[in-house]
Amino acid sequence: MNFEETLAERIGEAQSVLKAYLPEETGFQKTVLEAMNYSTLAGGKRLRPVLMKESFSLFGGTGELIAPFMAALEMIHNYSLVHDDLPAMDNDKYRRGRRTTWCVYGEGMAILAGDGLLNYAYETACRAFDLLETQAGSYRAVSEALSVLARKAGIYGMVGGQCADIQAEKYPKEAITEELLLFIHQNKTAALIESALMIGAILAGAPKEAVDRMEQVGQDIGLAFQIQDDILDVTGDQQVLGKPVGSDEKNNKATYVSLRGLAAARREVDRLTQEALSLLRSFDRRNLFLEELIEKLVHREK
Amino acid sequence: MNFEETLAERIGEAQSVLKAYLPEETGFQKTVLEAMNYSTLAGGKRLRPVLMKESFSLFGGTGELIAPFMAALEMIHNYSLVHDDLPAMDNDKYRRGRRTTWCVYGEGMAILAGDGLLNYAYETACRAFDLLETQAGSYRAVSEALSVLARKAGIYGMVGGQCADIQAEKYPKEAITEELLLFIHQNKTAALIESALMIGAILAGAPKEAVDRMEQVGQDIGLAFQIQDDILDVTGDQQVLGKPVGSDEKNNKATYVSLRGLAAARREVDRLTQEALSLLRSFDRRNLFLEELIEKLVHREK
Repeated sequence: MNFEETLAERIGEAQSVLKAYLPEETGFQKTVLEAMNYSTLAGGKRLRPVLMKESFSLFGGTGELIAPFMAALEMIHNYSLVHDDLPAMDNDKYRRGRRTTWCVYGEGMAILAGDGLLNYAYETACRAFDLLETQAGSYRAVSEALSVLARKAGIYGMVGGQCADIQAEKYPKEAITEELLLFIHQNKTAALIESALMIGAILAGAPKEAVDRMEQVGQDIGLAFQIQDDILDVTGDQQVLGKPVGSDEKNNKATYVSLRGLAAARREVDRLTQEALSLLRSFDRRNLFLEELIEKLVHREK
Repeated sequence: MNFEETLAERIGEAQSVLKAYLPEETGFQKTVLEAMNYSTLAGGKRLRPVLMKESFSLFGGTGELIAPFMAALEMIHNYSLVHDDLPAMDNDKYRRGRRTTWCVYGEGMAILAGDGLLNYAYETACRAFDLLETQAGSYRAVSEALSVLARKAGIYGMVGGQCADIQAEKYPKEAITEELLLFIHQNKTAALIESALMIGAILAGAPKEAVDRMEQVGQDIGLAFQIQDDILDVTGDQQVLGKPVGSDEKNNKATYVSLRGLAAARREVDRLTQEALSLLRSFDRRNLFLEELIEKLVHREK
């Protein structure tokens, strides 16, 4: 199989795992379950569970213990989109070509669907404890994976980054320092990617030092991904991207590009990518698919 | 100490535990941390953590393992209030005599503060795993407690009940069956109380059969508490209650009282209370404070 075929297969696998863990739409609470499934199954590249599974493989992990965590992380990613789209947040009516959850189910039900997804993520991840009866792994490893998931998703991770981002929108562009911008990107964008790579390593039984290196890989990828996004907003082809370019400048938004210029931004993407790849190649095993996935993700044109 | 003194002491203890686990208001994400603490420290009887601790004591539990779960459950209760108060939900501007979180911090930040509290509840509960190095308890017990917390707070617990409640408000009063009303009360009101009593028992090392009985106690108390609420809305003294009476009838809201009548509602409160108390007295040890607390809670006049 070539890279594209392997990627399609891995995305399909992540999709199946997610579907298997999403709730059945039945009972007096049916509406919130429908809203949760509507938003989660609306599409998406399933990047985070795919990265998690590849990290698990890199450290020799096999079996089903990773599955509930793959589903849980994707639920957390999707709850954040459902709440981000709300009128009180970004007020977005469309995502991935479909009406957003609040447009279809109403604001109140969308708030509840996001809450339901976030909470069900933890309920789902907890199922890994039950799997210990038949799967390789330890209570300690699963509890560490849960702690990482909660930390990276929360106030010292994604939620923290979202807060800083909302606040920063009120500041004049000149007031956004590189330190603040880095905080936002590290937490809002990179934190969940870090958790994906760390949890894969933890559940495969990797030592703490390896988990720490995977956290750094995740941060590098997350930041590179975000800076590339900002570069494409300046240099991208609207036809290829499928969305308008130049929106950051139009919205007077501070980005790495506006702070440091295009050439420095490109150098930073390359530096981060090389750091991530050389860290990845520092282990006993290699995962060539994961290495190629990272290169493609960062150097994408859309 | 008499009952009132003991209760005040227990509430004070729950308050201290909660405060110790709430985040420090520092960093680029400071605003969301302030909003979380504002809503959580706004007051309240700390009923759920107090019940959790008393269940822990009933089964001989000692030490600190219970503390992160006490704080976590109170965070979950408070996130649900923050989201319930939002304009898209109940649109409440005041709670416990203070402006609600969205009134002070804006809608977007209130959504994020609720998300932050829910997620931080799990981050906090996960700290119990770290305490196992010094406290009596097992990974299995902590993981079971976490699973119960997630289940009772989520789509098969509180979130499920909230969804059914929101939907039911759209139906004509005549369409609300006793089955639907019971589902709403069991999930929206009783589920978190069940989790409090179950988690206390689990962390004290009680056997599964005892945990199941405590779940039933929690359900009985939750339902009795809710029906008493509905009774007081009909028979209560506005001065004593500190809020208007007759609001259910005015809002044409289906309650146990409107479905079955006042006399049957009173009998049901008594039946549920007696069942809870006789279950509580079926164990080797007794907790007289917990028994009295339950009687007072259910037969309150305000």
